[in-house]
Amino acid sequence: MKLRITLSALIGAALIQGCVSPEVASTGQPEQPQKPKNIIMVVADGMGPAYTTAYRNYMDDPGTEQVELVVLDRMLVGNASTYPANVSGYVTDSAAAATALASGVKSYNGAIGVDENKVAVESVLQRAKALGMRTGVAVTSQINHATPAAYLAHNESRKNYNEIADSYYDDKVNGEFVADVMLGGGTSYFEREDRDIVAQFIDAGYEYVDTYNKLATLPAGSKVLGLFAPVGLPPVLDDSRKNRLAYLTEHAIRHLENERGFFLLVEASQVDWAGHDNDIGSAMAEMHDLALAMEYLKDYVSQNPDTLVLLTADHSTGGLTVGANGVYEWRPQYLRGLKGSAVAIATELVNQSQPAVYLANQLGFELTDEERQLSVELAAQKDVKAAHKAIKTLLDTRTNTGWTTGGHTGVDVEVFAVGAGSSQFAGQLDNTDIAKRIFTLLQGASPGALSEPVNGSRDCDFKSDWHCQ
Amino acid sequence: MKLRITLSALIGAALIQGCVSPEVASTGQPEQPQKPKNIIMVVADGMGPAYTTAYRNYMDDPGTEQVELVVLDRMLVGNASTYPANVSGYVTDSAAAATALASGVKSYNGAIGVDENKVAVESVLQRAKALGMRTGVAVTSQINHATPAAYLAHNESRKNYNEIADSYYDDKVNGEFVADVMLGGGTSYFEREDRDIVAQFIDAGYEYVDTYNKLATLPAGSKVLGLFAPVGLPPVLDDSRKNRLAYLTEHAIRHLENERGFFLLVEASQVDWAGHDNDIGSAMAEMHDLALAMEYLKDYVSQNPDTLVLLTADHSTGGLTVGANGVYEWRPQYLRGLKGSAVAIATELVNQSQPAVYLANQLGFELTDEERQLSVELAAQKDVKAAHKAIKTLLDTRTNTGWTTGGHTGVDVEVFAVGAGSSQFAGQLDNTDIAKRIFTLLQGASPGALSEPVNGSRDCDFKSDWHCQ
Repeated sequence: MKLRITLSALIGAALIQGCVSPEVASTGQPEQPQKPKNIIMVVADGMGPAYTTAYRNYMDDPGTEQVELVVLDRMLVGNASTYPANVSGYVTDSAAAATALASGVKSYNGAIGVDENKVAVESVLQRAKALGMRTGVAVTSQINHATPAAYLAHNESRKNYNEIADSYYDDKVNGEFVADVMLGGGTSYFEREDRDIVAQFIDAGYEYVDTYNKLATLPAGSKVLGLFAPVGLPPVLDDSRKNRLAYLTEHAIRHLENERGFFLLVEASQVDWAGHDNDIGSAMAEMHDLALAMEYLKDYVSQNPDTLVLLTADHSTGGLTVGANGVYEWRPQYLRGLKGSAVAIATELVNQSQPAVYLANQLGFELTDEERQLSVELAAQKDVKAAHKAIKTLLDTRTNTGWTTGGHTGVDVEVFAVGAGSSQFAGQLDNTDIAKRIFTLLQGASPGALSEPVNGSRDCDFKSDWHCQ
Repeated sequence: MKLRITLSALIGAALIQGCVSPEVASTGQPEQPQKPKNIIMVVADGMGPAYTTAYRNYMDDPGTEQVELVVLDRMLVGNASTYPANVSGYVTDSAAAATALASGVKSYNGAIGVDENKVAVESVLQRAKALGMRTGVAVTSQINHATPAAYLAHNESRKNYNEIADSYYDDKVNGEFVADVMLGGGTSYFEREDRDIVAQFIDAGYEYVDTYNKLATLPAGSKVLGLFAPVGLPPVLDDSRKNRLAYLTEHAIRHLENERGFFLLVEASQVDWAGHDNDIGSAMAEMHDLALAMEYLKDYVSQNPDTLVLLTADHSTGGLTVGANGVYEWRPQYLRGLKGSAVAIATELVNQSQPAVYLANQLGFELTDEERQLSVELAAQKDVKAAHKAIKTLLDTRTNTGWTTGGHTGVDVEVFAVGAGSSQFAGQLDNTDIAKRIFTLLQGASPGALSEPVNGSRDCDFKSDWHCQ
């Protein structure tokens, strides 16, 4: 499925719907929102409230009496509900949630920028582009994964990765590409045998880079396509650059800054993937990747108070709980020395001649006799899947971490905001309110349908296939 | 252990510590807090964020597109961390959390109104009494359970129920009893063979009532001791009055209102107990009991804008998740027709001649063949414990509810506020901040030690015994 978004459609939707009045935030007095010049929307995929608490504990200096605050604590303004359209019940997937966050419209699980009737709905990023702002995405998944896709594209199914990639080149707003800067993974979708979208973007004047270091060589203000992995980036524990999201964010901004302002979507995509895997070590490392980006952004707002930075999650993943099994403890000390994701450690473990030494080194703590014995058995079995599972169980036991699912749960997520207009996001929101209030801050109209329904089947099982690689 | 709180100790602590400046809330501009005349602090014991989301879904009208907002959604202002003192790690019990909420001081799990060194710390309720306000508690546990105890008493251990009950009579502030109104359960602690505290309160001029209906017969402005059960009240699903917390709250206020203002602690104590039991039906019913009280209080603030109403939880219980097992669904429709708590249904089930008919009637939905067969087997076994467990599993399966523990978890909890001074509680707080800001609103001093350390052992295992009955 492919939809062309035209200027007339955008303007038409804007004209017929009128302006939305800003609502009064739950706290404080009614106030006129300060219109931000730049808007940076950060989505931490899968980051339910247990993740933010766990991360604070993970970062805690146990030598002090208090648990030290982390950057997120200085930005919290409220919570948001995440449920999808009625047809999909009370637990959302990332596509429906991203569509809600991007366009202010509830849709079915799997929907990318389309409503329940598969009618395309305008995103805040597309509106920003229509208003003459520069636009970009910086994510740790493939750039055509559900969350960035809902800001840039329209498709009946998140699983149509190639169609979504195509649309990044084919769709235009005011005759321009939807995004000026696209940073993340995805060469396998953008350099295909049937179509080389990377080459097309190069020919259209985009700078193309495929390593983090090359990104630093580009002159500011470039149009950039940066694809640093075939699909998603590696888990941050296994990546060469431990602050990759902050790095991508900083470079995206460097290219987006201009007099008319910009809209940037940043996604810490792999908090979710760690949650699906029930890998508590990776979950905390991905949270740290996010936190470094948020620290950069908080500093950026200090220097650029005309910028709004928002952060929320699309849902919680894994049913993570901080403590479990009737024991009133959570022990993050066993996560602080981790050198790899559970799957990466497992993959290497089965090839080790001294598996106990290797495992202790990778986990960063001394093994018990039982754990040493386990490592020897796992190495002998040469079964990566079994080793992967065993390492996660070991870490859950050490830390006393609980999980209830390999999928998502429906708990409300937190909302963080700082900068111009941030007071508009306080209190209890629905995820659609976030888009609606951004539309208002953009001085545009309410979101609405852009096209006719698209004929097509919804035969994908989004419930069983979250990763969509 | 028993501590006498004297006027001189209270005033001394107030004099030497000076005033705490109100902090700037995370959202909005700095503002002078509006000093409330009355403060109503509501604690929903065990109500982590999954409970509030689940409750909204539970109350949802599935015939409408949106999930309807509930009263809590109109009051959310932020979140709070709940961790206890270092010595107890990252997961709190209700005693340490209540001490933090009441006094602004982190302590060890099990501590009632004492710090890590077992030194008594003043509570906001005690400060209110010292300032000449009327004071009360209205709870669904026994009135000497951890949460109300931390506002009224000081003891090294929450398990010393009789000592705590004694102190309600023995402790004085300005020569007066600490609380003017005490409503909840607890005759087994207050009418003992070794001491009849009820009789003592009657002789001291308190009205005593032991049924909900008798409470309505008392003239406004009475001093009241109301004990409606031997220990805690029954689960609300099994209680005669389905709005008992709203009812107790309304009557407490009727007796507390006066020109100098009042401080009332309200506790929805049994959200926690349902969570410990992993009984999702009871959890939602206890949430509804809370919500009815909050609706009453929200209306009260509309009529009395000089009143501050705060609501938070002390921690989350059970590791509840909204959805589980890889399935993106939560199905509250199987909870809406419940007629009893899981334990009450189980207790009766084993005596039924037609167990399938009975169970279907109690659960409020038609049973599958498998469930019918199960009910017959459970009735034949005559094992209440097994039936109790099976009914909870049945409801978890029907609703797709997840749990990770029979104890507590460490996730941050939500903070709700409405009325005079409510803006002081916005953004990310620690549980101690709530007491500190109430102290500020009371125009008093910061919290501090009231007495010397008490010699005594900490031999109770608070981790293994939460219910303490």
